[in-house]
Amino acid sequence: MALSAPYKEIIDNAVKAIHERIFFAQYPEHPKAYGEDAPTIGLEAYKNQLGKPFTELLQTNAASWIGEEVSPYSLEPLGITYPAFEVDTLIVRSGRAFAAWKNVSVDDRAEVLVLALEQIKNRFFEIANATQHTTGQSFMMSFQASGPHASDRALEALAMGYEELTRFPEHVTWEKPAGKSVIKLEKTFKPVPKGVGLVIGCSTFPTWNSVPGLFATLITGNTAIVKPHPKSIYPIAIVVAEIQKALQAKGLDINICQLAVDTASKPITKELAQNPLVKLIDYTGGSAFGAYVESLPGKVTFTEKAGVNSVILDSVADLNAVTQNLAFAASLYTGQMCTAPQNIFIPAGGIKVGDQTVTYDEVVKAFCGALSGIAKHPQMGPGTFGAIQNEATLKRVDAVKDIATVLLAPETIANPEFPNARTSSHVVLEVDAKDFGIYENELFGPIVLVIKTKNTEHSVELAKEMAAKHGAITCAAYTTDGATEKLIAEEMESVFAPVSFNLTGGIFVNQHAAFSDFHVTGGNPAGNASFSNPEYVNKRFVWVGHRKL
Amino acid sequence: MALSAPYKEIIDNAVKAIHERIFFAQYPEHPKAYGEDAPTIGLEAYKNQLGKPFTELLQTNAASWIGEEVSPYSLEPLGITYPAFEVDTLIVRSGRAFAAWKNVSVDDRAEVLVLALEQIKNRFFEIANATQHTTGQSFMMSFQASGPHASDRALEALAMGYEELTRFPEHVTWEKPAGKSVIKLEKTFKPVPKGVGLVIGCSTFPTWNSVPGLFATLITGNTAIVKPHPKSIYPIAIVVAEIQKALQAKGLDINICQLAVDTASKPITKELAQNPLVKLIDYTGGSAFGAYVESLPGKVTFTEKAGVNSVILDSVADLNAVTQNLAFAASLYTGQMCTAPQNIFIPAGGIKVGDQTVTYDEVVKAFCGALSGIAKHPQMGPGTFGAIQNEATLKRVDAVKDIATVLLAPETIANPEFPNARTSSHVVLEVDAKDFGIYENELFGPIVLVIKTKNTEHSVELAKEMAAKHGAITCAAYTTDGATEKLIAEEMESVFAPVSFNLTGGIFVNQHAAFSDFHVTGGNPAGNASFSNPEYVNKRFVWVGHRKL
Repeated sequence: MALSAPYKEIIDNAVKAIHERIFFAQYPEHPKAYGEDAPTIGLEAYKNQLGKPFTELLQTNAASWIGEEVSPYSLEPLGITYPAFEVDTLIVRSGRAFAAWKNVSVDDRAEVLVLALEQIKNRFFEIANATQHTTGQSFMMSFQASGPHASDRALEALAMGYEELTRFPEHVTWEKPAGKSVIKLEKTFKPVPKGVGLVIGCSTFPTWNSVPGLFATLITGNTAIVKPHPKSIYPIAIVVAEIQKALQAKGLDINICQLAVDTASKPITKELAQNPLVKLIDYTGGSAFGAYVESLPGKVTFTEKAGVNSVILDSVADLNAVTQNLAFAASLYTGQMCTAPQNIFIPAGGIKVGDQTVTYDEVVKAFCGALSGIAKHPQMGPGTFGAIQNEATLKRVDAVKDIATVLLAPETIANPEFPNARTSSHVVLEVDAKDFGIYENELFGPIVLVIKTKNTEHSVELAKEMAAKHGAITCAAYTTDGATEKLIAEEMESVFAPVSFNLTGGIFVNQHAAFSDFHVTGGNPAGNASFSNPEYVNKRFVWVGHRKL
Repeated sequence: MALSAPYKEIIDNAVKAIHERIFFAQYPEHPKAYGEDAPTIGLEAYKNQLGKPFTELLQTNAASWIGEEVSPYSLEPLGITYPAFEVDTLIVRSGRAFAAWKNVSVDDRAEVLVLALEQIKNRFFEIANATQHTTGQSFMMSFQASGPHASDRALEALAMGYEELTRFPEHVTWEKPAGKSVIKLEKTFKPVPKGVGLVIGCSTFPTWNSVPGLFATLITGNTAIVKPHPKSIYPIAIVVAEIQKALQAKGLDINICQLAVDTASKPITKELAQNPLVKLIDYTGGSAFGAYVESLPGKVTFTEKAGVNSVILDSVADLNAVTQNLAFAASLYTGQMCTAPQNIFIPAGGIKVGDQTVTYDEVVKAFCGALSGIAKHPQMGPGTFGAIQNEATLKRVDAVKDIATVLLAPETIANPEFPNARTSSHVVLEVDAKDFGIYENELFGPIVLVIKTKNTEHSVELAKEMAAKHGAITCAAYTTDGATEKLIAEEMESVFAPVSFNLTGGIFVNQHAAFSDFHVTGGNPAGNASFSNPEYVNKRFVWVGHRKL
């Protein structure tokens, strides 16, 4: 085996993009880029899979076949079952596979993983349908997030790993002058992997949030056990199956990458996480379980937990453009993105719009109007909001109505294509700045809080405190004043929260582009890792240097 | 301010050396490189300092002046006092300095730090005397370790930091094609420092072990509080004073780098370490306190603790050359180096020497003979062994005589120059392989254990277990067999311990060269950090990217 020239070029281009951080996509986000027949083929594959065992995995001797996925659009079970294994079986197989994989060269590992990505590309439309009917995302978001965007993030992690693993020479002759003679040592430098990696997935972004850790773990020579959320297995099962096929094609142990499924009633995640052979854990999900993962002794963890994302409104050029943009950002996938805005800080005295001052009430009204406009729009509504993954989110929307003044009440979003879809438009609550206890909580789903502050400095202070205490993955700020922009940037970066300034039109605070935007900084409680900074791969292996006279 | 061309060149050369890992030294290790008068000037400066307050630090309003250093050569107090401050004063000053330093550009920080290194260079001989009479190292080791070798390690960390901090562009225009139009964002990428860094020094290598963390912390924009061991303040006080002078010369707050002294009876380390503003901790010292440091919540820690270093004897070309080399490695600074060999594994059936088999007893005899030869040699003995830093080490040498068969008894090493010097040659103990409970302990100082094993595989198994359980910073192995060499390399690297093979002549297992050898891997219990891999600097800051339409 070796790293073939076309695959080397893919990695080299990715490495270059990571350094330059300009726009780059190995996998185009437009569905049309994949050929005319691709959508139909993908849909057929999806339909053929429904109600049947998923038999593509190469893992053998399953202990049982299980599956409990339900479409948030039809509220019907998908009826797909997956092979399940005892935790001991998974660990023993992973440990045995590690003994081989750790000695496979970096080039050979890269060859396998790029091959897998190129095969996954051919299944983007099946993955899109699988994602839509497990997460409730719209079809377009399902396609983009779970398909090209996820694969770009996987390639980013792979390329970052490739660069770091090849950063130092494998071998050098070291010659130190010593008077009239020379001391000569042969030195080798080896990036030694840590062991078994566990990748714990979430229900809302089953591939996008899991493939960076998975590819980072594998390129660095660790083996992987992928434990998806029991409600969102199908999309990542395809990814794992393609990795296994690529491993098999290259004559390698398919257990280098295993799928580990469980059910909500009999979870296996803690048993896996606590096993001493598991050295790396990648996790996306709630903060409580994330804190447990981070607290495990003897593990290197990479977490993305909950955050409370803020919007700071100070001054704008065009209020309509701003509220439209914010409303869309909040509406995308019914606010179930980790990057969605939640808390909107508006000064009690209103904000500047060009040369005018627009009152607080008018700003709130404009924002609520924009939200309603999207939700009630017959085409835009269902396509933007999608469906709600989890019944608990719907209950939360109902429950929060009691805790503060309701500015906008939630309603069902009619979806003619899927009349049973679990949907809701936003509940917008008005909260006073002093009610920190309300808005400091992550209220996952279509819940937006408008917080009346004394002035912009007060807004910044609260947004900063929120990020420091509870974490923030994004912050949107609107200001036409240079000094205020500087203040916001400096204050928010001091709590390691990135700020998006003055977004309007077709770009939204929720969108983090692979190869350019770091996703989560790793510096505040929203998570301890970042897609994909150098640490994201460096912590997965250890440089060991031997010397020989 | 800006990064001047000559200093930029120093950094560029260092970055290149780090990548290539061939021999490189910015600061020559030969004393003659520093001019004919330098030794005398340095000695005079040292003598003038004795018995007086150390007034070079620019920190003001000391709460008291304290100092309790004692020369291990004369057993007399040095009589030097240092300004001491309340912990709150140190923290408040550091926090205030952080607000400014974090916004100083990477180039400007580099300018200050290289200036400091260039000034420290002029004081290598004073630092050498200061080190000799606080640590007990020989003059030559004091000069090399605390002078050029330490400064090279500082430059290495600084250069690694410089490279990482400038890895991504400060600003890019990101243009994403969107149908017929283009979405354009201005993006900035900023490495945001974490806060106050605490650097906790040890008594045996007061500069070498502290300056890498100190320079890594400072170049990444964090402020530093340097807390030396109360018995070894003088050498690092000079370093801190020179950094403060360089800061002052550039118009910066000298509290960016503070010295924090305490006494053995009133330690302040825990109070400093637990302060919430302290985000980074660099630590060298015993394992128990190291474990405490690592356990502190909300801190990023870089530790070098104790390790148990093994020697594996399998087969050699020239037994005399090997035992001479090992004996010298064990004798350097009376075994008080963290890299010194402790456990020598020898197969019961003896080892191959060329085509012959030499019995276990003969190998042991040759090794003990070589040790005695150095210890009793009138010139070589005192110059190699130096003196013992701590009375407790001497007591340990005495105490261990009861726990196993004594193969070689310790004796005082006569030192005509310093008749009161605290010295001891080695105690060599013979231990059976089954007595794991004895040889699994780090027995710091001139204590060597010879462990009789079944065969080389057994030796490797035990050395590996030791490194996994208790950590190892070095491993020396001697084998003329290719397959055995491969086995040792793979087994030891699986527990993240580097192996030095077949060292004889003028190169020793204890020596780790800056810019080439990683010191400590960070992968086993000997420490969680490595001088200086990319992680060593990356963990000290967070990439934050802002975006603006």
